[in-house]
Amino acid sequence: MFISFEGIEGSGKSTAQRLLAEHLQGLGHDPLLTREPGGCLLGRSLRPILLDARTRGLSTRAELYLFLADRAQHVAEVIRPALEAGQPVLCDRYVDSTLAYQGYGRGLDPERLRRINDMATGGLMPDLTLLLDLPVHCGLERAGLRNRQEGTVLSEGRFDAESLEFHERVRQGYRNLAAEEPERFAIIDAAQPPEDVILQCLSAVEASLRRRGRGLD
Amino acid sequence: MFISFEGIEGSGKSTAQRLLAEHLQGLGHDPLLTREPGGCLLGRSLRPILLDARTRGLSTRAELYLFLADRAQHVAEVIRPALEAGQPVLCDRYVDSTLAYQGYGRGLDPERLRRINDMATGGLMPDLTLLLDLPVHCGLERAGLRNRQEGTVLSEGRFDAESLEFHERVRQGYRNLAAEEPERFAIIDAAQPPEDVILQCLSAVEASLRRRGRGLD
Repeated sequence: MFISFEGIEGSGKSTAQRLLAEHLQGLGHDPLLTREPGGCLLGRSLRPILLDARTRGLSTRAELYLFLADRAQHVAEVIRPALEAGQPVLCDRYVDSTLAYQGYGRGLDPERLRRINDMATGGLMPDLTLLLDLPVHCGLERAGLRNRQEGTVLSEGRFDAESLEFHERVRQGYRNLAAEEPERFAIIDAAQPPEDVILQCLSAVEASLRRRGRGLD
Repeated sequence: MFISFEGIEGSGKSTAQRLLAEHLQGLGHDPLLTREPGGCLLGRSLRPILLDARTRGLSTRAELYLFLADRAQHVAEVIRPALEAGQPVLCDRYVDSTLAYQGYGRGLDPERLRRINDMATGGLMPDLTLLLDLPVHCGLERAGLRNRQEGTVLSEGRFDAESLEFHERVRQGYRNLAAEEPERFAIIDAAQPPEDVILQCLSAVEASLRRRGRGLD
Protein backbone atom coordinates (compact mmCIF):
# COMPACT_ATOMS: atom_id res chain seq x y z
CA MET A 1 0.00 0.00 0.00
CA PHE A 2 1.29 3.40 -1.04
CA ILE A 3 -0.19 6.40 0.80
CA SER A 4 0.75 10.01 0.09
CA PHE A 5 0.05 12.97 2.38
CA GLU A 6 -0.73 16.27 0.72
CA GLY A 7 -1.74 19.75 1.86
CA ILE A 8 -0.55 23.31 2.25
CA GLU A 9 2.21 24.42 4.62
CA GLY A 10 1.26 23.79 8.26
CA SER A 11 -1.55 21.35 7.48
CA GLY A 12 -0.01 18.69 9.72
CA LYS A 13 1.12 16.16 7.10
CA SER A 14 4.17 14.92 8.96
CA THR A 15 2.26 14.59 12.27
CA ALA A 16 -0.50 12.61 10.53
CA GLN A 17 2.15 10.48 8.81
CA ARG A 18 3.85 9.70 12.11
CA LEU A 19 0.61 8.90 13.95
CA LEU A 20 -0.65 6.67 11.13
CA ALA A 21 2.71 4.87 11.07
CA GLU A 22 2.49 4.23 14.84
CA HIS A 23 -1.00 2.83 14.41
CA LEU A 24 0.15 0.54 11.57
CA GLN A 25 3.13 -0.59 13.65
CA GLY A 26 0.70 -1.44 16.46
CA LEU A 27 -1.04 -3.75 13.98
CA GLY A 28 2.27 -5.46 13.16
CA HIS A 29 3.06 -3.63 9.92
CA ASP A 30 6.44 -2.06 9.17
CA PRO A 31 5.70 1.09 7.17
CA LEU A 32 8.41 3.14 5.43
CA LEU A 33 8.14 6.85 6.24
CA THR A 34 9.61 9.08 3.58
CA ARG A 35 9.11 12.51 2.05
CA GLU A 36 9.65 14.77 -0.93
CA PRO A 37 11.86 16.56 -1.42
CA GLY A 38 14.62 14.81 0.45
CA GLY A 39 13.66 11.12 0.67
CA CYS A 40 16.91 9.96 -0.94
CA LEU A 41 20.56 11.03 -0.89
CA LEU A 42 20.15 13.20 -4.00
CA GLY A 43 17.04 14.81 -2.55
CA ARG A 44 18.85 15.64 0.66
CA SER A 45 21.28 17.77 -1.35
CA LEU A 46 18.41 19.37 -3.32
CA ARG A 47 16.11 20.04 -0.36
CA PRO A 48 18.08 23.06 0.94
CA ILE A 49 18.14 24.61 -2.57
CA LEU A 50 14.38 24.10 -2.96
CA LEU A 51 13.15 25.08 0.48
CA ASP A 52 15.66 27.59 1.83
CA ALA A 53 14.16 31.07 1.90
CA ARG A 54 17.63 32.38 1.04
CA THR A 55 17.50 30.72 -2.41
CA ARG A 56 17.01 33.73 -4.68
CA GLY A 57 15.66 33.95 -8.20
CA LEU A 58 15.09 30.24 -8.81
CA SER A 59 13.06 30.14 -12.05
CA THR A 60 9.69 28.36 -12.03
CA ARG A 61 10.97 25.75 -14.48
CA ALA A 62 14.27 25.13 -12.71
CA GLU A 63 12.27 24.62 -9.50
CA LEU A 64 10.02 22.13 -11.30
CA TYR A 65 12.94 20.10 -12.67
CA LEU A 66 14.66 19.95 -9.29
CA PHE A 67 11.48 18.53 -7.70
CA LEU A 68 11.24 16.03 -10.57
CA ALA A 69 14.89 14.99 -10.23
CA ASP A 70 14.27 14.34 -6.54
CA ARG A 71 11.08 12.41 -7.37
CA ALA A 72 12.60 10.27 -10.12
CA GLN A 73 15.48 9.25 -7.87
CA HIS A 74 13.22 8.79 -4.85
CA VAL A 75 10.88 6.44 -6.74
CA ALA A 76 13.76 4.43 -8.25
CA GLU A 77 15.85 4.19 -5.11
CA VAL A 78 13.35 4.18 -2.24
CA ILE A 79 9.61 3.89 -2.99
CA ARG A 80 9.54 1.23 -5.69
CA PRO A 81 11.96 -1.17 -3.94
CA ALA A 82 9.98 -0.84 -0.67
CA LEU A 83 6.65 -1.53 -2.40
CA GLU A 84 8.15 -4.47 -4.27
CA ALA A 85 9.33 -5.87 -0.94
CA GLY A 86 5.75 -5.60 0.34
CA GLN A 87 6.39 -2.71 2.72
CA PRO A 88 3.66 -0.05 3.11
CA VAL A 89 4.99 3.37 2.06
CA LEU A 90 3.82 6.62 3.71
CA CYS A 91 5.12 9.58 1.72
CA ASP A 92 4.90 13.23 2.81
CA ARG A 93 4.19 14.98 -0.54
CA TYR A 94 4.27 13.31 -3.97
CA VAL A 95 2.99 14.01 -7.51
CA ASP A 96 0.00 16.10 -6.40
CA SER A 97 2.32 18.66 -4.80
CA THR A 98 3.70 19.41 -8.28
CA LEU A 99 0.19 19.86 -9.69
CA ALA A 100 -0.90 22.04 -6.76
CA TYR A 101 2.23 24.20 -6.35
CA GLN A 102 3.81 24.41 -9.80
CA GLY A 103 0.46 24.05 -11.60
CA TYR A 104 -2.20 25.92 -9.61
CA GLY A 105 0.32 27.98 -7.62
CA ARG A 106 2.83 29.00 -10.29
CA GLY A 107 0.61 28.64 -13.35
CA LEU A 108 2.43 25.90 -15.31
CA ASP A 109 0.26 23.87 -17.69
CA PRO A 110 -1.36 20.97 -15.74
CA GLU A 111 -1.41 18.55 -18.69
CA ARG A 112 2.33 18.99 -19.22
CA LEU A 113 2.88 18.54 -15.51
CA ARG A 114 0.93 15.28 -15.51
CA ARG A 115 2.98 13.94 -18.41
CA ILE A 116 6.25 14.94 -16.83
CA ASN A 117 5.19 13.53 -13.44
CA ASP A 118 4.39 10.27 -15.22
CA MET A 119 7.79 10.25 -16.87
CA ALA A 120 9.52 10.88 -13.53
CA THR A 121 7.62 8.15 -11.65
CA GLY A 122 7.21 5.63 -14.44
CA GLY A 123 3.48 6.02 -13.76
CA LEU A 124 3.60 4.96 -10.10
CA MET A 125 0.59 6.50 -8.33
CA PRO A 126 -0.43 6.29 -4.66
CA ASP A 127 -3.26 3.91 -3.73
CA LEU A 128 -4.57 6.58 -1.38
CA THR A 129 -3.86 10.29 -1.01
CA LEU A 130 -4.77 11.92 2.30
CA LEU A 131 -5.42 15.60 1.62
CA LEU A 132 -5.06 17.50 4.88
CA ASP A 133 -7.26 20.47 4.20
CA LEU A 134 -7.56 23.59 6.28
CA PRO A 135 -7.93 27.35 5.81
CA VAL A 136 -4.72 28.95 4.54
CA HIS A 137 -4.40 31.37 7.46
CA CYS A 138 -4.51 28.48 9.99
CA GLY A 139 -1.85 26.55 8.07
CA LEU A 140 0.48 29.51 7.72
CA GLU A 141 0.07 30.38 11.40
CA ARG A 142 1.04 26.83 12.36
CA ALA A 143 3.95 26.81 9.90
CA GLY A 144 5.15 30.15 11.27
CA LEU A 145 4.98 28.82 14.83
CA ARG A 146 6.86 25.67 13.86
CA ASN A 147 9.49 27.68 12.02
CA ARG A 148 10.06 29.96 14.98
CA GLN A 149 10.29 27.01 17.35
CA GLU A 150 12.67 25.08 15.14
CA GLY A 151 14.59 28.05 13.78
CA THR A 152 13.72 26.86 10.27
CA VAL A 153 12.23 30.08 8.98
CA LEU A 154 15.21 30.53 6.67
CA SER A 155 16.20 26.94 6.08
CA GLU A 156 12.74 25.67 5.01
CA GLY A 157 10.59 28.74 4.66
CA ARG A 158 10.81 29.53 0.93
CA PHE A 159 7.25 28.42 0.18
CA ASP A 160 5.83 29.77 3.46
CA ALA A 161 7.05 33.17 2.29
CA GLU A 162 4.83 33.12 -0.83
CA SER A 163 1.76 35.37 -0.89
CA LEU A 164 -1.58 34.46 0.67
CA GLU A 165 -3.07 34.34 -2.84
CA PHE A 166 -0.46 31.77 -3.85
CA HIS A 167 -1.42 29.52 -0.92
CA GLU A 168 -5.12 30.01 -1.66
CA ARG A 169 -4.53 28.83 -5.24
CA VAL A 170 -2.60 25.82 -3.94
CA ARG A 171 -5.36 24.93 -1.46
CA GLN A 172 -8.08 25.28 -4.09
CA GLY A 173 -5.90 23.32 -6.52
CA TYR A 174 -5.69 20.41 -4.10
CA ARG A 175 -9.47 20.46 -3.64
CA ASN A 176 -9.95 20.38 -7.41
CA LEU A 177 -7.55 17.45 -7.74
CA ALA A 178 -9.47 15.60 -5.00
CA ALA A 179 -12.76 16.26 -6.79
CA GLU A 180 -11.32 14.85 -10.03
CA GLU A 181 -10.20 11.61 -8.38
CA PRO A 182 -12.57 10.92 -5.48
CA GLU A 183 -11.54 7.24 -5.30
CA ARG A 184 -7.88 8.01 -4.71
CA PHE A 185 -8.28 11.10 -2.52
CA ALA A 186 -9.68 11.42 0.99
CA ILE A 187 -10.16 14.98 2.21
CA ILE A 188 -9.25 15.18 5.90
CA ASP A 189 -10.40 18.13 8.01
CA ALA A 190 -7.00 19.22 9.29
CA ALA A 191 -8.42 21.98 11.48
CA GLN A 192 -9.61 19.30 13.96
CA PRO A 193 -7.49 18.24 16.96
CA PRO A 194 -4.72 15.75 15.98
CA GLU A 195 -6.55 12.77 17.57
CA ASP A 196 -9.58 13.41 15.32
CA VAL A 197 -7.37 13.95 12.28
CA ILE A 198 -5.76 10.57 12.78
CA LEU A 199 -9.15 8.87 13.29
CA GLN A 200 -10.36 10.31 9.99
CA CYS A 201 -7.10 9.20 8.29
CA LEU A 202 -7.57 5.67 9.66
CA SER A 203 -11.14 5.42 8.37
CA ALA A 204 -9.90 6.58 4.96
CA VAL A 205 -7.19 3.90 4.95
CA GLU A 206 -9.72 1.23 5.93
CA ALA A 207 -12.22 2.39 3.31
CA SER A 208 -9.52 2.35 0.65
CA LEU A 209 -8.46 -1.17 1.62
CA ARG A 210 -12.08 -2.37 1.67
CA ARG A 211 -12.61 -0.97 -1.82
CA ARG A 212 -9.73 -3.14 -2.93
CA GLY A 213 -11.06 -6.15 -1.04
CA ARG A 214 -8.43 -6.11 1.69
CA GLY A 215 -8.24 -5.24 5.41
CA LEU A 216 -5.79 -3.57 7.78
CA ASP A 217 -5.12 -6.64 9.95
CA MET B 1 24.57 35.69 -31.82
CA PHE B 2 24.25 32.52 -29.79
CA ILE B 3 26.82 29.78 -30.47
CA SER B 4 26.90 26.41 -28.73
CA PHE B 5 29.84 24.02 -28.66
CA GLU B 6 29.07 20.33 -28.66
CA GLY B 7 31.02 17.09 -28.79
CA ILE B 8 32.14 14.09 -26.79
CA GLU B 9 34.50 14.25 -23.80
CA GLY B 10 37.97 15.49 -24.80
CA SER B 11 36.84 16.98 -28.13
CA GLY B 12 38.33 20.37 -27.24
CA LYS B 13 35.10 22.36 -26.78
CA SER B 14 36.40 24.68 -24.09
CA THR B 15 39.66 25.37 -25.95
CA ALA B 16 37.73 26.20 -29.14
CA GLN B 17 35.37 28.38 -27.11
CA ARG B 18 38.28 30.31 -25.57
CA LEU B 19 40.12 30.78 -28.89
CA LEU B 20 36.96 31.91 -30.68
CA ALA B 21 36.25 34.35 -27.85
CA GLU B 22 39.76 35.80 -28.15
CA HIS B 23 39.27 36.24 -31.87
CA LEU B 24 35.91 37.97 -31.36
CA GLN B 25 37.46 40.21 -28.69
CA GLY B 26 40.18 41.16 -31.21
CA LEU B 27 37.35 42.35 -33.49
CA GLY B 28 35.94 44.49 -30.68
CA HIS B 29 33.14 42.17 -29.53
CA ASP B 30 32.53 41.28 -25.89
CA PRO B 31 31.37 37.65 -25.90
CA LEU B 32 29.96 35.93 -22.83
CA LEU B 33 31.61 32.54 -22.19
CA THR B 34 29.43 30.14 -20.29
CA ARG B 35 28.77 26.42 -19.97
CA GLU B 36 26.36 23.68 -18.96
CA PRO B 37 26.14 22.38 -16.41
CA GLY B 38 27.36 25.11 -14.11
CA GLY B 39 26.79 28.41 -15.91
CA CYS B 40 24.71 29.88 -13.07
CA LEU B 41 24.76 29.69 -9.28
CA LEU B 42 22.25 26.81 -9.21
CA GLY B 43 24.26 24.94 -11.82
CA ARG B 44 27.42 25.32 -9.78
CA SER B 45 25.77 23.39 -6.96
CA LEU B 46 24.44 20.76 -9.41
CA ARG B 47 27.64 20.30 -11.43
CA PRO B 48 29.42 18.23 -8.75
CA ILE B 49 26.38 15.93 -8.41
CA LEU B 50 26.17 15.46 -12.19
CA LEU B 51 29.82 15.07 -13.08
CA ASP B 52 31.51 13.61 -10.03
CA ALA B 53 32.48 9.99 -10.65
CA ARG B 54 31.71 9.34 -6.98
CA THR B 55 27.98 10.06 -7.55
CA ARG B 56 26.51 6.55 -7.37
CA GLY B 57 23.25 5.20 -8.69
CA LEU B 58 21.83 8.43 -10.13
CA SER B 59 18.81 7.29 -12.18
CA THR B 60 18.68 8.21 -15.88
CA ARG B 61 15.61 10.37 -15.30
CA ALA B 62 16.94 12.14 -12.22
CA GLU B 63 20.09 12.93 -14.23
CA LEU B 64 17.95 14.34 -17.03
CA TYR B 65 15.94 16.59 -14.71
CA LEU B 66 19.06 17.93 -13.01
CA PHE B 67 20.50 18.92 -16.40
CA LEU B 68 17.16 20.56 -17.29
CA ALA B 69 16.99 22.45 -13.99
CA ASP B 70 20.47 23.81 -14.68
CA ARG B 71 19.46 24.70 -18.25
CA ALA B 72 16.18 26.42 -17.34
CA GLN B 73 17.92 28.55 -14.74
CA HIS B 74 20.93 29.22 -16.99
CA VAL B 75 18.71 30.45 -19.84
CA ALA B 76 16.57 32.63 -17.56
CA GLU B 77 19.41 34.09 -15.53
CA VAL B 78 22.38 34.22 -17.91
CA ILE B 79 21.86 33.46 -21.60
CA ARG B 80 18.63 35.31 -22.37
CA PRO B 81 19.60 38.55 -20.54
CA ALA B 82 23.00 38.58 -22.34
CA LEU B 83 21.41 38.05 -25.78
CA GLU B 84 18.80 40.72 -25.06
CA ALA B 85 21.64 43.11 -24.17
CA GLY B 86 23.20 42.34 -27.59
CA GLN B 87 26.11 40.31 -26.20
CA PRO B 88 27.30 37.30 -28.22
CA VAL B 89 26.98 34.11 -26.14
CA LEU B 90 29.39 31.18 -26.47
CA CYS B 91 28.07 28.20 -24.54
CA ASP B 92 29.98 24.97 -23.87
CA ARG B 93 27.17 22.34 -24.20
CA TYR B 94 23.46 23.10 -24.59
CA VAL B 95 20.27 21.31 -25.73
CA ASP B 96 22.05 18.92 -28.10
CA SER B 97 24.02 17.42 -25.21
CA THR B 98 20.71 16.19 -23.77
CA LEU B 99 19.70 14.63 -27.08
CA ALA B 100 23.13 13.04 -27.58
CA TYR B 101 23.81 11.81 -24.02
CA GLN B 102 20.38 11.14 -22.50
CA GLY B 103 18.79 10.28 -25.86
CA TYR B 104 21.35 8.39 -27.96
CA GLY B 105 23.56 7.50 -24.98
CA ARG B 106 21.02 6.46 -22.35
CA GLY B 107 18.13 5.54 -24.65
CA LEU B 108 15.46 8.09 -23.57
CA ASP B 109 12.86 8.95 -26.22
CA PRO B 110 14.21 11.79 -28.44
CA GLU B 111 10.80 13.36 -29.11
CA ARG B 112 10.09 13.64 -25.39
CA LEU B 113 13.56 15.09 -24.88
CA ARG B 114 12.96 17.73 -27.57
CA ARG B 115 9.69 18.76 -25.94
CA ILE B 116 11.21 18.95 -22.50
CA ASN B 117 14.26 20.86 -23.81
CA ASP B 118 11.85 23.32 -25.39
CA MET B 119 9.97 23.70 -22.14
CA ALA B 120 13.24 24.33 -20.23
CA THR B 121 14.59 26.91 -22.69
CA GLY B 122 11.30 28.53 -23.75
CA GLY B 123 12.33 27.48 -27.28
CA LEU B 124 15.65 29.38 -27.33
CA MET B 125 17.93 27.66 -29.86
CA PRO B 126 21.53 28.51 -30.83
CA ASP B 127 22.09 30.33 -34.12
CA LEU B 128 25.07 28.09 -34.72
CA THR B 129 26.23 24.83 -33.15
CA LEU B 130 29.87 23.88 -33.59
CA LEU B 131 30.11 20.11 -33.35
CA LEU B 132 33.70 19.19 -32.48
CA ASP B 133 33.86 15.72 -33.94
CA LEU B 134 36.65 13.20 -33.44
CA PRO B 135 37.06 9.46 -32.91
CA VAL B 136 35.97 8.38 -29.45
CA HIS B 137 39.34 6.85 -28.52
CA CYS B 138 41.14 10.17 -29.27
CA GLY B 139 38.65 12.14 -27.16
CA LEU B 140 38.79 9.78 -24.21
CA GLU B 141 42.60 9.75 -24.34
CA ARG B 142 42.66 13.55 -24.19
CA ALA B 143 40.04 13.65 -21.45
CA GLY B 144 42.03 11.08 -19.45
CA LEU B 145 45.21 13.16 -19.85
CA ARG B 146 43.40 16.32 -18.79
CA ASN B 147 41.86 14.58 -15.80
CA ARG B 148 45.23 13.25 -14.64
CA GLN B 149 46.85 16.66 -15.04
CA GLU B 150 44.08 18.50 -13.24
CA GLY B 151 43.29 15.80 -10.71
CA THR B 152 39.69 15.90 -11.94
CA VAL B 153 39.30 12.22 -12.65
CA LEU B 154 36.93 11.91 -9.70
CA SER B 155 35.47 15.39 -9.57
CA GLU B 156 34.38 15.54 -13.24
CA GLY B 157 34.91 12.05 -14.61
CA ARG B 158 31.43 10.46 -14.30
CA PHE B 159 30.71 10.54 -18.02
CA ASP B 160 34.31 9.70 -19.01
CA ALA B 161 33.86 6.49 -17.05
CA GLU B 162 30.97 5.30 -19.28
CA SER B 163 31.68 2.45 -21.72
CA LEU B 164 33.24 2.95 -25.16
CA GLU B 165 29.90 1.88 -26.71
CA PHE B 166 28.14 4.66 -24.81
CA HIS B 167 30.54 7.27 -26.18
CA GLU B 168 30.22 5.79 -29.69
CA ARG B 169 26.43 6.17 -29.47
CA VAL B 170 26.86 9.76 -28.28
CA ARG B 171 29.26 10.59 -31.14
CA GLN B 172 27.00 9.01 -33.72
CA GLY B 173 24.03 10.76 -32.13
CA TYR B 174 25.70 14.12 -32.57
CA ARG B 175 26.44 13.34 -36.22
CA ASN B 176 22.79 12.40 -36.78
CA LEU B 177 21.61 15.63 -35.15
CA ALA B 178 23.98 17.61 -37.39
CA ALA B 179 22.67 15.81 -40.47
CA GLU B 180 19.07 16.68 -39.47
CA GLU B 181 19.85 20.39 -39.12
CA PRO B 182 22.68 21.21 -41.54
CA GLU B 183 21.94 24.95 -41.40
CA ARG B 184 22.42 25.20 -37.66
CA PHE B 185 25.28 22.70 -37.28
CA ALA B 186 28.85 22.93 -38.49
CA ILE B 187 30.89 19.75 -38.09
CA ILE B 188 34.45 20.66 -37.10
CA ASP B 189 37.26 18.13 -37.47
CA ALA B 190 38.52 18.20 -33.89
CA ALA B 191 41.39 15.78 -34.58
CA GLN B 192 43.26 18.64 -36.33
CA PRO B 193 45.79 20.84 -34.47
CA PRO B 194 44.05 23.59 -32.40
CA GLU B 195 45.02 26.37 -34.86
CA ASP B 196 43.22 24.53 -37.68
CA VAL B 197 40.24 23.78 -35.45
CA ILE B 198 39.82 27.46 -34.67
CA LEU B 199 40.17 28.43 -38.38
CA GLN B 200 37.38 26.00 -39.25
CA CYS B 201 35.25 27.38 -36.39
CA LEU B 202 35.80 30.94 -37.66
CA SER B 203 34.75 30.05 -41.22
CA ALA B 204 31.62 28.42 -39.81
CA VAL B 205 30.79 31.54 -37.80
CA GLU B 206 31.31 33.74 -40.87
CA ALA B 207 29.22 31.45 -43.08
CA SER B 208 26.44 31.46 -40.50
CA LEU B 209 26.48 35.26 -40.26
CA ARG B 210 26.52 35.59 -44.07
CA ARG B 211 23.50 33.31 -44.31
CA ARG B 212 21.70 35.72 -42.02
CA GLY B 213 22.94 38.75 -44.02
CA ARG B 214 25.41 39.94 -41.40
CA GLY B 215 29.22 40.05 -40.97
CA LEU B 216 31.69 39.60 -38.13
CA ASP B 217 33.02 43.20 -38.15
